[in-house]
Amino acid sequence: MFQKSDRPPKPAADVQNEHDGRRISIDKVGVKDIEYPIQVLDRAQKVQQTVARVSMYVNLPHQFKGTHMSRFVELLNEHSQDMSTLAIAGILRAMCERLQAETAHLELSFPLFVLKRAPVSGAEGLMSYRCSVRGTGGKDGDVLLESEVQVPITALCPCSKAISDEGAHNQRGLVTVRFHQRRFVWIEEVIDIVERSASCEVYSVLKREDEKYVTEKAYANPMFVEDVARSVAEKLCAHDLIDWFSVEVENQESIHAHNAYACLERGQCPDRGA
Amino acid sequence: MFQKSDRPPKPAADVQNEHDGRRISIDKVGVKDIEYPIQVLDRAQKVQQTVARVSMYVNLPHQFKGTHMSRFVELLNEHSQDMSTLAIAGILRAMCERLQAETAHLELSFPLFVLKRAPVSGAEGLMSYRCSVRGTGGKDGDVLLESEVQVPITALCPCSKAISDEGAHNQRGLVTVRFHQRRFVWIEEVIDIVERSASCEVYSVLKREDEKYVTEKAYANPMFVEDVARSVAEKLCAHDLIDWFSVEVENQESIHAHNAYACLERGQCPDRGA
Amino acid sequence: MFQKSDRPPKPAADVQNEHDGRRISIDKVGVKDIEYPIQVLDRAQKVQQTVARVSMYVNLPHQFKGTHMSRFVELLNEHSQDMSTLAIAGILRAMCERLQAETAHLELSFPLFVLKRAPVSGAEGLMSYRCSVRGTGGKDGDVLLESEVQVPITALCPCSKAISDEGAHNQRGLVTVRFHQRRFVWIEEVIDIVERSASCEVYSVLKREDEKYVTEKAYANPMFVEDVARSVAEKLCAHDLIDWFSVEVENQESIHAHNAYACLERGQCPDRGA
Amino acid sequence: MFQKSDRPPKPAADVQNEHDGRRISIDKVGVKDIEYPIQVLDRAQKVQQTVARVSMYVNLPHQFKGTHMSRFVELLNEHSQDMSTLAIAGILRAMCERLQAETAHLELSFPLFVLKRAPVSGAEGLMSYRCSVRGTGGKDGDVLLESEVQVPITALCPCSKAISDEGAHNQRGLVTVRFHQRRFVWIEEVIDIVERSASCEVYSVLKREDEKYVTEKAYANPMFVEDVARSVAEKLCAHDLIDWFSVEVENQESIHAHNAYACLERGQCPDRGA
Repeated sequence: MFQKSDRPPKPAADVQNEHDGRRISIDKVGVKDIEYPIQVLDRAQKVQQTVARVSMYVNLPHQFKGTHMSRFVELLNEHSQDMSTLAIAGILRAMCERLQAETAHLELSFPLFVLKRAPVSGAEGLMSYRCSVRGTGGKDGDVLLESEVQVPITALCPCSKAISDEGAHNQRGLVTVRFHQRRFVWIEEVIDIVERSASCEVYSVLKREDEKYVTEKAYANPMFVEDVARSVAEKLCAHDLIDWFSVEVENQESIHAHNAYACLERGQCPDRGA
Repeated sequence: MFQKSDRPPKPAADVQNEHDGRRISIDKVGVKDIEYPIQVLDRAQKVQQTVARVSMYVNLPHQFKGTHMSRFVELLNEHSQDMSTLAIAGILRAMCERLQAETAHLELSFPLFVLKRAPVSGAEGLMSYRCSVRGTGGKDGDVLLESEVQVPITALCPCSKAISDEGAHNQRGLVTVRFHQRRFVWIEEVIDIVERSASCEVYSVLKREDEKYVTEKAYANPMFVEDVARSVAEKLCAHDLIDWFSVEVENQESIHAHNAYACLERGQCPDRGA
Repeated sequence: MFQKSDRPPKPAADVQNEHDGRRISIDKVGVKDIEYPIQVLDRAQKVQQTVARVSMYVNLPHQFKGTHMSRFVELLNEHSQDMSTLAIAGILRAMCERLQAETAHLELSFPLFVLKRAPVSGAEGLMSYRCSVRGTGGKDGDVLLESEVQVPITALCPCSKAISDEGAHNQRGLVTVRFHQRRFVWIEEVIDIVERSASCEVYSVLKREDEKYVTEKAYANPMFVEDVARSVAEKLCAHDLIDWFSVEVENQESIHAHNAYACLERGQCPDRGA
Repeated sequence: MFQKSDRPPKPAADVQNEHDGRRISIDKVGVKDIEYPIQVLDRAQKVQQTVARVSMYVNLPHQFKGTHMSRFVELLNEHSQDMSTLAIAGILRAMCERLQAETAHLELSFPLFVLKRAPVSGAEGLMSYRCSVRGTGGKDGDVLLESEVQVPITALCPCSKAISDEGAHNQRGLVTVRFHQRRFVWIEEVIDIVERSASCEVYSVLKREDEKYVTEKAYANPMFVEDVARSVAEKLCAHDLIDWFSVEVENQESIHAHNAYACLERGQCPDRGA
C-alpha cells in the first residue's frame, strides 16, 4: 500500500452534479473507442463473436456540469453479449435511464466475417468486412440507425483497356456504403449488392482456375470509379427497405501513388431534418 | 524499351466523354490524398511552407461517363504556391472551368507551425497544429469554406482533485474546432481561443520554472471534458466573424485506456440548408 | 456470365515453379495482414475468442521463381481454431510441408481481453491489451517465439511534483514488452509485471472511491519514463523463464504535444546470433 | 493569473540528476514524433523544405535517474535548418555534449518530393516518397546511418497473365528499401533503382498517351512480388557504396483484400555486430 498524506481528507463533493451557469448544452459526452468483444447477428450462423471499437455518448442539458463516465462502461459490460442492430434500441433506452439523459448515442465499428467460396474451385475462405453501426435514441425507444460497410472490390479501367493494345490497369478499390433502413436489412445483403457492382469481386482464397476466372471477368467488365458508384447506387435506389444511402468508392490506382475517388448520396436523410 | 504486341493498335476512344444512360449524377469525383508541398498564410511570417494531403473533386452530371483525373493534378501543380484560404475561390473556379463542372471541392490537411514561448523562461519552440480547409465553390466565384484546427491542451479532472487528498489526474486532450467564417479569420486566432479555454495550454519547450508554472496552473483550473467544450464554445459564440462552429474535445485519460469525449455544434451551418 | 474472348485458351503454365537464375533467395514471402477470428489461450477462461491480423511467410530458395500464395490462406482456415503459442510449432511445421519450405514465419497481432476489478469498489470491467506473437520454425518442430504486449499505465512526473506547490503532471503511458521465453509464460503474467511497475495501473471502470485511490496512489509514486522502464526491466531480469526482453515506454505527456520515450533491451537474443 | 496555493514553496530539487541505484542503464531516452519543418538535400534543387516527424534519444548510464527532455527540443530548434544526412554527425555530437551522453540517436521521417515527367507526353508532376533517416553517433563524430525510402510501383502478375486469355491482374505495390552507405548516396538514386525494377513505375500525371504506355509496359513485364524484390536486390548488390540493405515489397493485390509480401536482406549490417 502506498503512503498517504497526513492532511485531513476532503469532503466527498459530487462535482459532476454541480450547477453550470453558462447555458451551453452538450450534444454528446461519453467514452470513445473502447475495444471490446461483442456478439453481432450473422446471416449464415445466426450470431458471430467479433471485436468492436465502441463509443457511447449522451446529451447533457446546459444546467449540469458533468456526466458520469463510469456508468457507460458498466452498461457496455452488461450489454456486450448482444450488440445486434435489433438490441440497440434497448441499450440506448438503458443509457438514457442510467445517465438521466434525453438522447443516447452508441457507435460500433467491427469486422464482420463472411465465409466465401472461390468462383470456380469452390475453395472456402473467410472475408473480413469493416462495419459500423451508429444508433441514436431516447427513452421512448425510437431509434435512428445508420449502418456502414466497407467492401473491397476489383476495378479495371475502361480507358486503359480501350487505348492499350493489351492489358488494362486494374486495382483494389474500397466501396463504403452508409444507409438508413426502414426495416431490418442484413449487412451481408449490402455486401452482395456491392460485390455485384464492380469489375470483379475479391476473394480470400483463389486457386489457379479461380485466378483465371477473376482476371478475365475483370477484363470483360471495365469500370471507372464513377461506374462502380453508379452501379451500387442503382441497386440501392431499387431496394425497398433503404431510405437513404451514400456510396463512396476509392480506387488504389495501380498506375499512380494517389487514389481515385467518387461519392454520391441519395434519399432523405432523417437526421439532417431533410 | 519493352516488347510491344503485334496486334493492330486500338482506335483512341475518348471513353470518359461517352454517354451514361443511368441518370445518376455523381456528387464528387476526383483525386484523394495527394501529398504535396504547399504555401499557406501565417499570421506572424505572412507565408509558411508546409506539406498537405490534398483532395480535389468536381460534380459529374448524370449524362457523362467519367471525369478527367489527370487535370486535377495539373491544376494542383499550377496552384500549390498559394493554397491560402484567400486563393481557394480562384482555384475552385479554375477547377470548374478545366473540368467543365458546376461545383468543385478542394480539401487540404496540413500541419501549421507556430512559434510559442514558454510561460516563464520565454524559451522558444515551434508548435505544430493539424489544420484542414475544405472549400466548395462554382464558376461564379462563390465559396463555402470550412476550416478545422486541432489544438492539444492539458485537462485536469475536477472530480479527482475534489475527492483526493493530494494530486489530481490530468492528461493531454485534443480539441478539434470546425468553423465557417463570415470574413477572414486567422486560424492562429482560433488556436489562441482554445488555448485559453483549458486547464492549461501545452508547449514545445518547458524549462524547470515553466514546468512548475504549468503544473500549478492546471491544478488551479480543473476542467472536465465538458468544461473545455463549453469554454471554447462560449468564446466562439461571441466571435463576430464566425457563423457556425463545432467543438470536439477528446481527453487521453491518464487513469483509463479509453478516452473521454464531448462535442457540441452551434450556429447556422450553410451547407446543410439550415 | 461475362463475355469471353474468342482467342484460343492459353496453356496452363505453372509459372511459380519456373526456374529463377538470379541466385537470390528470398527471406520471407507470403501474405500480410489478413484480419481473422482466432482462438488464443486465456489464463482465467482457458481459451478466448478474438480477432487477429495475421501474416504468414516462408523462405524461398534462390532457384524457385515464386511461392503459392493461396496455400497460406488455406492453412490459416485450417488452424485458426487454435492459434495459441502452444500450437504455433505445429502450424509452422505444416506451413513448411505444404509450401515445401525450410523455414516458416507466423505473425499474429490481436487484442487480449482481461477482466479487471477496480481497486476499492471491486467494479468489474474488461481491459484490452494489444498482443503480438511472432513464431519462426522449421520442419523439425523447433520454434523461436517472440511475444509482445502493450500495457497502458499512469506515469506521474517526479520533477513536476518536486518543484510544484500542488499537483503534478501525469499522463497515460504505453509500455511495450517483447520477450523470448524458455518455457511457457502467460502474457497475463507480463501484464501484471508492467502494471506493478508504474505510478499506477489503469482500469476500465473506476467509481468515485477508486478514482480517489488511483489519484493518490499515482501522486505517491512519481516515476519518470526512465523509472518505468527500469522498474519493468528489474522484474523481467528476475524472471526465470524469460531469456531476452526489450521494454519501451512512451508517455503521452500532458504538458507537451510530443511524447517522452525510453527503451532498453536485456539478455541474449537468439535470433540475432547473440 | 491563476490562484496560487498559500503553502510554502518547495525547494527546487534537481530530480533528474539524482542517483539511481538499480544498476540498469537505458539504451535510448528522449522525445518521440515531434512534427517539425526541416530542410533536406535535394539532387535536383540542392535543398528542399519538407515536414518531418523527429525523434531524438540518448543513452543514459545506470547511475543517473533521468535525462533533460527540454534540451532535445532546444537542439531541434537550433538544427532544423539543415537536417541533411551530411549534417547529422554534427547534430549527434551536439546532442551528446548538451545531454552529457555517450551515444545519441536521431530519427527523421519525411516526404521527399521529386519532379517527374510522364513517359510520353512529358507532363510534369511532383511525386512524394516517404523517407526515413536514422543516425546513431557519439562525441567522436563517428556515425552509423541507416536510410529508408518507400517507392510505389506497379506489379503485374505473371501467373494471371499466363493463364488468362486476356488481361492480367495488376496492382500498386510499395517497395521499402533500407540501406547503409559507405559514402554519400542520393536517396533519389535508390528511388531510380526501384522504379527500374518493377512491371512499371507510377507517375503523378499521366495523359492518355502515357496511360497507354504504362498499361502496355506493365503487361509486357509481368513480375511477382518475389521478382520485384530480387530485381531491386540485384541492383543494390552491384552498388559500390551500399554495404547492407533490406528490400520489402508489399503488393495491394487487386484480386484479394490482403497483401502479398516478400523481403530479403543482404550484406553486413554494422549495427548488429555482423
